[in-house]
Amino acid sequence: RPVELREAEVRMIDQRQLPEKLVYVDAKDARETAEAIRAMVVRGAPAIALAGAFGFYLEASRHISESADKLEEVLVKAHALLLASRPTAVNLSFALTRMMNTFHTLALREVRVDEIVRGLRAEALALQAEDEVACRQIGEHLLTLYEEGMGVLTHCNTGGLATSRYGTALAGFYLAKERGMALRVYADETRPYLQGSRLTAWELQQAGVDVTVICDNMAAAVMAQGLARAVVVGADRIAANGDTANKIGTMGLAILARHFGIPFYVAAPVSTIDPRTPTGAEIPIETRPEDELTVIRGARIAPVGVAAYNPAFDVTPSDLITAIITEIGIYRAPYAFSH
Amino acid sequence: RPVELREAEVRMIDQRQLPEKLVYVDAKDARETAEAIRAMVVRGAPAIALAGAFGFYLEASRHISESADKLEEVLVKAHALLLASRPTAVNLSFALTRMMNTFHTLALREVRVDEIVRGLRAEALALQAEDEVACRQIGEHLLTLYEEGMGVLTHCNTGGLATSRYGTALAGFYLAKERGMALRVYADETRPYLQGSRLTAWELQQAGVDVTVICDNMAAAVMAQGLARAVVVGADRIAANGDTANKIGTMGLAILARHFGIPFYVAAPVSTIDPRTPTGAEIPIETRPEDELTVIRGARIAPVGVAAYNPAFDVTPSDLITAIITEIGIYRAPYAFSH
Repeated sequence: RPVELREAEVRMIDQRQLPEKLVYVDAKDARETAEAIRAMVVRGAPAIALAGAFGFYLEASRHISESADKLEEVLVKAHALLLASRPTAVNLSFALTRMMNTFHTLALREVRVDEIVRGLRAEALALQAEDEVACRQIGEHLLTLYEEGMGVLTHCNTGGLATSRYGTALAGFYLAKERGMALRVYADETRPYLQGSRLTAWELQQAGVDVTVICDNMAAAVMAQGLARAVVVGADRIAANGDTANKIGTMGLAILARHFGIPFYVAAPVSTIDPRTPTGAEIPIETRPEDELTVIRGARIAPVGVAAYNPAFDVTPSDLITAIITEIGIYRAPYAFSH
Repeated sequence: RPVELREAEVRMIDQRQLPEKLVYVDAKDARETAEAIRAMVVRGAPAIALAGAFGFYLEASRHISESADKLEEVLVKAHALLLASRPTAVNLSFALTRMMNTFHTLALREVRVDEIVRGLRAEALALQAEDEVACRQIGEHLLTLYEEGMGVLTHCNTGGLATSRYGTALAGFYLAKERGMALRVYADETRPYLQGSRLTAWELQQAGVDVTVICDNMAAAVMAQGLARAVVVGADRIAANGDTANKIGTMGLAILARHFGIPFYVAAPVSTIDPRTPTGAEIPIETRPEDELTVIRGARIAPVGVAAYNPAFDVTPSDLITAIITEIGIYRAPYAFSH
């Protein structure tokens, strides 16, 4: 698990150092947790949200002998500090709002401060349990789409390292492993950050799942040879019409899957579906710094001064998506989300 | 130029060190030249062939005061040594055969040894001139397919570094630059060897061509946004029906180009068209070692022990190829090569 609440600290896998080293970072209060999130020790929106909730609780537990008023003061600061650590992650904002609401609900009822702190711990652990259940349900639905021995291609990292456990797009692979169903996973490396080769390959290997790393540009060959017979990816945001923003390279895989007649699946919790975004055209695409592309782990791989274009996401039109798999069920085109 | 014949040596750009350093390696005889080819100082089939021909001539020039019989003995050894340096490159074999034939033709006529050596020098320089003319002609034909201001995507390195000058797929960009026609080139990095970001970006930047590096998985986004309105690639082997083996990732680009309705061009000398290979199914695809994919410039980017699949080439079906551009003209589907 990428994030775990221990006695007096939140313990995080330092994902920056994978796969070379498995190192943990401990944070004992809101400030240290915010620092770890900012420094990308932890990544993946659900995992970041959990780390934030745990950091919020730890801050409260360090002020267990203060008054409720003093505790509120501390928690308002902790909330602001944690929220600012990664301002774009909506899951983090959602989790911190739930923690703050829990405090207010208990404080209004004039519950003792040590009971409030216990309540915050329970709420943070509930967030973790809910995420785990949602991921597991996504995995259950994904399993119905796979067959024994099938090769499945995945992109980026949407696994246990990005969530509380199981992941979204990777959840089906973990459940298949638990049930003795053999799947062959192809993890494309996912340039420029290499989340596929560094993180997905690492966590699936740890779990004993049959995983093979390929370069992004090998996806067509793997499909043409029949090695991959389905594609499964996660999502950063799903518009009301099903258009899906996800890690750069996702749209290309959807086009290749269509060409070779194999299904293209998006797996994500329903909270990723944004009814206020009508279509993909309204999703802003972040462009990242050029040197994230021209330098790999300290080594320059393009000439100094050359231009580079580094969009972080692309938008896959919904007509290329065979199905969207959520914890509450499987949606198919044309997408009319019911939740 | 990647390979140049100087007074008493062949001077090669050390392509292993690009783009970080521009360093030259000099070879003064057949053995040193073969070593430089084997070590991949020089790469690209036409450039390797030239280096081989120059090394062969240099070996002869070092035995200018010997008898013709002794010279023959030396050249038979040089031929074998150079041919073995990269056994798969047919261009090298072709160039060395021409050099050996030139020796035999002159020796049969009982030409003086110093005249034979001069003849070998002329033959090696003729090979270079012919390659340069063929590349330039390919470039002329490519230019008829481009429009002012157009964005063109290319893959791998098929430029001046891979040939005597101009390159094949890149030749059109150099000619456009010479004539003041503005083109915007997108060079995808071409994992796992990064020939696009390391070599194509470097040589186009040196020539003042407008070039932007992208990751392989960004090609679909660049096409969707209208930034690239054509794709041009080289070829390793073209079957009689037009199916084209080229660097891994080429087929995926052809499928994306078809999806977005933009032309997909293959540029190569006619010698690349192999009439003895009926279709792409008969082209063997080399699979390369896994660590060429899991380690980038010394840094591990995938966990130790994880499987990796590393095919070096793929075969693009001819029906996805808009046109094949050679020095003798432009072929369009259905392909019926006349040479």
